[in-house]
Amino acid sequence: MRDFSGDHRWLSINTATVRRQRGQDWPLLQILEACAARGIRAVSPWRDQVEQAGLAATAKAVKAFGLELSGYCRGGMFTYADSAQREAVRDDNRRALDEACELNAACLVLVVGGLPGALAGHALHKDLDSARQQVAEGVQLLLNDARERGMPLAIEPLHPMYAADRACINTLEQALDLCDLLDPQRTGALGVAVDAYHVWWDPKLAAQIERAGASRLLALHVCDWLTPTTDLLNDRGMMGDGVIDLPRIRGWMEAQGFAGYAEVEIFSSAHWWQRDGAQTLDTCIERHRRCV
Amino acid sequence: MRDFSGDHRWLSINTATVRRQRGQDWPLLQILEACAARGIRAVSPWRDQVEQAGLAATAKAVKAFGLELSGYCRGGMFTYADSAQREAVRDDNRRALDEACELNAACLVLVVGGLPGALAGHALHKDLDSARQQVAEGVQLLLNDARERGMPLAIEPLHPMYAADRACINTLEQALDLCDLLDPQRTGALGVAVDAYHVWWDPKLAAQIERAGASRLLALHVCDWLTPTTDLLNDRGMMGDGVIDLPRIRGWMEAQGFAGYAEVEIFSSAHWWQRDGAQTLDTCIERHRRCV
Repeated sequence: MRDFSGDHRWLSINTATVRRQRGQDWPLLQILEACAARGIRAVSPWRDQVEQAGLAATAKAVKAFGLELSGYCRGGMFTYADSAQREAVRDDNRRALDEACELNAACLVLVVGGLPGALAGHALHKDLDSARQQVAEGVQLLLNDARERGMPLAIEPLHPMYAADRACINTLEQALDLCDLLDPQRTGALGVAVDAYHVWWDPKLAAQIERAGASRLLALHVCDWLTPTTDLLNDRGMMGDGVIDLPRIRGWMEAQGFAGYAEVEIFSSAHWWQRDGAQTLDTCIERHRRCV
Repeated sequence: MRDFSGDHRWLSINTATVRRQRGQDWPLLQILEACAARGIRAVSPWRDQVEQAGLAATAKAVKAFGLELSGYCRGGMFTYADSAQREAVRDDNRRALDEACELNAACLVLVVGGLPGALAGHALHKDLDSARQQVAEGVQLLLNDARERGMPLAIEPLHPMYAADRACINTLEQALDLCDLLDPQRTGALGVAVDAYHVWWDPKLAAQIERAGASRLLALHVCDWLTPTTDLLNDRGMMGDGVIDLPRIRGWMEAQGFAGYAEVEIFSSAHWWQRDGAQTLDTCIERHRRCV
């Protein structure tokens, strides 16, 4: 297992983590600059941030700062109410693929979607199986596009508390079942993003990481589970502030040959380390060395 | 599958659902009376409510009103920091068993506990595996006491969002693995309480209900998952207000031979139906017929 205590060469910053500082959006190009200035070698930006900064300008800055993309956030949201929405989702995911290629991302992360309409507060139906079927179809179609472009797809199982509205793939086992169905040859075109926040509770986690193997383990995301957790979306903790045994999970992944970045992905608005972007980055570096 | 639309003979009220009305505790004996007055045939009271009303007085009222107990809430919380706590937990669970027997409950429901200290906000460690081992030992010990008394134990898997602080058994599969380990002969002494709120998201739910079979399916709890959910503990929805396909889950259980009560268990403080206990009971009856 790699020793993270001496440096932060394997730290990546998901830019959602520093999206806001002092109540305002921190422009993506400034975030990239601040990362590079601290010797952070990788980031994972969100599409809306890239759109605001401009794709070409972002690609140029990534290159100029010598940054890698540990992933690109995000494609997916495959579930639909009608055929028009299905086509729109497919088109949007193709654009996400193109952007990921332009930015030379390691993978396109997929948050697959929940019950149609649920994220807006009005689920159109309660048939989770049919939503999961739509997801399987959506990933299958996108996989063809992804293979053409040579861009790996990383299915991210989300915590079961997001099953209704954000992602109906909720365990690593379920994600790997879909990988095995759609990419039985383990070509490297399809795998998983293991976000510790979403999967830490799973009694089958170690076994499923072993099942995944290096060819399916495309990304590792880290933050922490706070006790108590006061908000389902915006109360993730900084590594070390909660109960997730991050080194243990990383160890399981590295035992399979995973050798990529540990990407810090935190949505939060209220914690002290969120007040200032630079301070947040410094804290990520310190905690990455000590707690990941 | 039983038709619930014509009456509410298979409705049970978990008394947490009407614990408070108009900002005050509703005394248990009055709750029992209000249930009986509406033709509700079963309840599932909480230990602290029974303690407040008195065990003998509660047993007498249960009998006088002709009520059954679909379960008794609750035993468990097996995880411990030291041997003194382990002994205290065991003693307390034995008392819970005795009370369940006195009240002639169908089963003692077990919420197994999380990381020691986490519920108070300060987890003593992050070793979920060791907590799960403590749970297995605790259930094993209690099972001996339960067998002597002829009181079935129902392990309740809790939603993964409670893994840290309330219960580290988080899927039906995990609960059934423990049942198979400790009661391989399926004697009826050990089984599961299936609370739809905790397990509805699980892609393996149908298969695990089938695996459980009638001998392990000791209780069915119902409420609903709201979108959005604004609080991890106190934002459960009334049946029909959320996204859980309750008849489908009940159908899976009944296909295995489950023929017990559908017990309404809702913790909530803010919703309209919580304002008045009588109104809540009337709503439970109406929704039980229409949405369960």
